[in-house]
Amino acid sequence: MHTLYSMQNSGNCYKLRLAMSQLGLPFQIVDVDILKGETRTPEFLAVNPNGKVPALKLDTGEILSESNAILFFLAEGTNLLPDDRFCKAEMLQWMFFEQYSHEPYIAVARFWLKIRKGGRELQAHMLDNWWERGYEALGVMERHLETHDFFAADRYSIADIALYAYTHVAEDGEFDLSDFPKINAWMERVRAQPDHVPMDWRP
Amino acid sequence: MHTLYSMQNSGNCYKLRLAMSQLGLPFQIVDVDILKGETRTPEFLAVNPNGKVPALKLDTGEILSESNAILFFLAEGTNLLPDDRFCKAEMLQWMFFEQYSHEPYIAVARFWLKIRKGGRELQAHMLDNWWERGYEALGVMERHLETHDFFAADRYSIADIALYAYTHVAEDGEFDLSDFPKINAWMERVRAQPDHVPMDWRP
Repeated sequence: MHTLYSMQNSGNCYKLRLAMSQLGLPFQIVDVDILKGETRTPEFLAVNPNGKVPALKLDTGEILSESNAILFFLAEGTNLLPDDRFCKAEMLQWMFFEQYSHEPYIAVARFWLKIRKGGRELQAHMLDNWWERGYEALGVMERHLETHDFFAADRYSIADIALYAYTHVAEDGEFDLSDFPKINAWMERVRAQPDHVPMDWRP
Repeated sequence: MHTLYSMQNSGNCYKLRLAMSQLGLPFQIVDVDILKGETRTPEFLAVNPNGKVPALKLDTGEILSESNAILFFLAEGTNLLPDDRFCKAEMLQWMFFEQYSHEPYIAVARFWLKIRKGGRELQAHMLDNWWERGYEALGVMERHLETHDFFAADRYSIADIALYAYTHVAEDGEFDLSDFPKINAWMERVRAQPDHVPMDWRP
């Protein structure tokens, strides 16, 4: 059985709980609380030298980090990862978009405004930039969804899982999604997939 | 022939010029100057709605963006991309590390300190954070290279190309690499690969 090092309210960790639910993969969780510094202990740095959750210890003992790389590993050969070469690259394109142009604004705003006590004051100088760039990312998604039901390969894939994780809780970072009808409709389609689980689900 | 939308001094664009050189793929370049706003024109946004270089228009007319997704596309089935499932995930792990924990500090510091005139004054409040996080990323790389010659799969791959692109010009962002002997030795190994080309090379 795989072991997921996970913080329950982290969207990056949720991606993997959701994918493993949908893939029918049994796994156990080791809870790691970044607010208590638990990603900076020698024990955890031996698991992921980059000091971030999620990390996945495979049943073979091998360890992977980076949520989207783990998603790719888990989904390869399943219907969550298209086998066509161009579709696969398109899916990775959206996953790199998520980590570079979406997560650093939408997830980070949520962390400081909702999860980390006192974050609003500590990061007051950053908020406008996060909101501006976060809305840009949401705009790119909205325009794509005007002509597509899903992000890659014309079907639900790990690209949707990667983007859903923080989009569906963007309001925690004080993003208003009411002007993004295509994103809202896509989120409904994501939630309608078989074996969908919400962020608070645990195996 | 593929068409690369590229800015010559962008490390993200260099990744693709280097990979296509090493893969023996002919391509043509369309120069796009972000300093002149050329990634924000309607023409360019039709190529990449996210308004960033690089983008690659395939000979089929299909378009991909995100440097590391394009690297994956170009290298699949070649000796730059391991075929083993775990090795492939490990390679993607380092490529997501590059885009999340390395590029936003090391490349961004270089952009504002070296490429964008007046950047030091505009971004004075960000510099300490970029240097701190950038050195953390270099530390993670240095520790990995204490026990490995390359980043994934025990051989030169697109993970090395992705990390080399901005590491080898980190000094432009005022990072001092003299305390990173393993990184320096790895950069020599990268430069010794067949068909290596420097950043200013064009086909």
